[in-house]
Amino acid sequence: MKIGILGLGLIGGSLGLDLRSHGHYVLGVSRRESTCTKAIALGSVDEASVDTNLLVTAEVVFICTPIGLIIPTVEQLIAYLPSNVIITDVGSVKTPIVQAISSLWDNFVGGHPMAGTAESGIEAAQRHLFVDRPYVLTPTAVTPKTAVNVVAEIVRQLRATIYHCAPEDHDKAVSWISHLPVMVSASLIAACMSETDSKVLQLAQKLASSGFRDTSRVGGGNPELGVMMAQYNRQELLKSLQKYRHNLDELISLIEQENWKVLEEKLQLTQQARTAFVDD
Amino acid sequence: MKIGILGLGLIGGSLGLDLRSHGHYVLGVSRRESTCTKAIALGSVDEASVDTNLLVTAEVVFICTPIGLIIPTVEQLIAYLPSNVIITDVGSVKTPIVQAISSLWDNFVGGHPMAGTAESGIEAAQRHLFVDRPYVLTPTAVTPKTAVNVVAEIVRQLRATIYHCAPEDHDKAVSWISHLPVMVSASLIAACMSETDSKVLQLAQKLASSGFRDTSRVGGGNPELGVMMAQYNRQELLKSLQKYRHNLDELISLIEQENWKVLEEKLQLTQQARTAFVDD
Repeated sequence: MKIGILGLGLIGGSLGLDLRSHGHYVLGVSRRESTCTKAIALGSVDEASVDTNLLVTAEVVFICTPIGLIIPTVEQLIAYLPSNVIITDVGSVKTPIVQAISSLWDNFVGGHPMAGTAESGIEAAQRHLFVDRPYVLTPTAVTPKTAVNVVAEIVRQLRATIYHCAPEDHDKAVSWISHLPVMVSASLIAACMSETDSKVLQLAQKLASSGFRDTSRVGGGNPELGVMMAQYNRQELLKSLQKYRHNLDELISLIEQENWKVLEEKLQLTQQARTAFVDD
Repeated sequence: MKIGILGLGLIGGSLGLDLRSHGHYVLGVSRRESTCTKAIALGSVDEASVDTNLLVTAEVVFICTPIGLIIPTVEQLIAYLPSNVIITDVGSVKTPIVQAISSLWDNFVGGHPMAGTAESGIEAAQRHLFVDRPYVLTPTAVTPKTAVNVVAEIVRQLRATIYHCAPEDHDKAVSWISHLPVMVSASLIAACMSETDSKVLQLAQKLASSGFRDTSRVGGGNPELGVMMAQYNRQELLKSLQKYRHNLDELISLIEQENWKVLEEKLQLTQQARTAFVDD
């Protein structure tokens, strides 16, 4: 199959490596000439260009730009493309993207491969990035079944674990397990920074170990990504934050009331509940 | 040196292994006969007994019981001990313990080895548990210098990193980096559990990965330990929780106002600040 990839960063570059190894012919487009050259040298694409016209012969196009560029990129791209071309994206929030693009292009299937690393850029591209990682597809009631099947078949070749759901359900789920943790964790660091006694702050910095490391990790991550999550998934994130705040207030009031029995019951419930989300 | 250990669990048992390897003669006391037998078999102690009278010939006694038993144990123990015996403890909160015991025993030095593992009990005892881990000593203005020096010398033999500070500063620091993270993290799990749409909850459970795993880890830990922290370090934890809540509210209101510029600045500050606490 002839597959286009628009945006040759970590995700687009890694996708190209795997698709080529399955015999697909990969056309890559990047805004920068130097990225095109690297993508060819690394084996991520068969051909590359800064000109989106390159994608006119593709059967499927993956939009792998940063989330803020997905909609404008598609708006520009569809001027060239035959209407039977299937477009899919890899954005980490789905409702606004699916809503905007579905009204412009029938053969669009929203997607979200959950396979980031701390690295970014074409240099970070790697084979098998998607193996055993979730890859969510978010077709709507009007998405053509054939388009969904074609994208799903490609995703299966990546050996990712496919989930199908409504864009709104995707955004609610990632708000809980991905976007809320960033804000919870960033607030922890911000609270610690607020310590005004410098000898206590320095002692805290020296004594911090695995508990603080783990709880603060995503709050100390890429600030642009954090803002992007809040911006694109604002409503769901705000709902999650309000629920979180309510649960936090409950714990605070149990501690204020010295209600150790109910606090222990709550902590038993969270200990138990966590096992349904992660293994260790 | 003849050293007593009262409480033969992970910490007491591990302490005994290291102290014996440095040529000390170790006397161990446990409430259970079977633990005494195991401690001798594992090489944690030279002699063991369920009778605290065994410790009467010790020069230094480490109290390694659960935190709630430290004060009553010392109250009982000092009826037997010559007044020159140095007592130290390993409790994870210091102010209430140091206050209570200092008024009963002059030669008392509060201590906190920060070297837990997920395991507990004498079976989990291991050599070198304290190597390169923080070991906080919390002498007060009236603690005899010789007592502090004797305990510090023993801690140095464990190759732990020693910090000296006031009990109150210790409790403030661990509230930030150890006790607050537990409540922050438990509230995250509790909030996720509150999702009423079962298909969204199930999707969240399937999509949860490293970000959720890390942020929720300490909130999914031992409920008794969480309650113990809240109970013994209640005032400092409540202060930390109030500061945390204030910082959380700031983030929520930035997202409500769509103030992406200031949100990004905040996240840049937390990204930067975290590096002063942990390496990765």
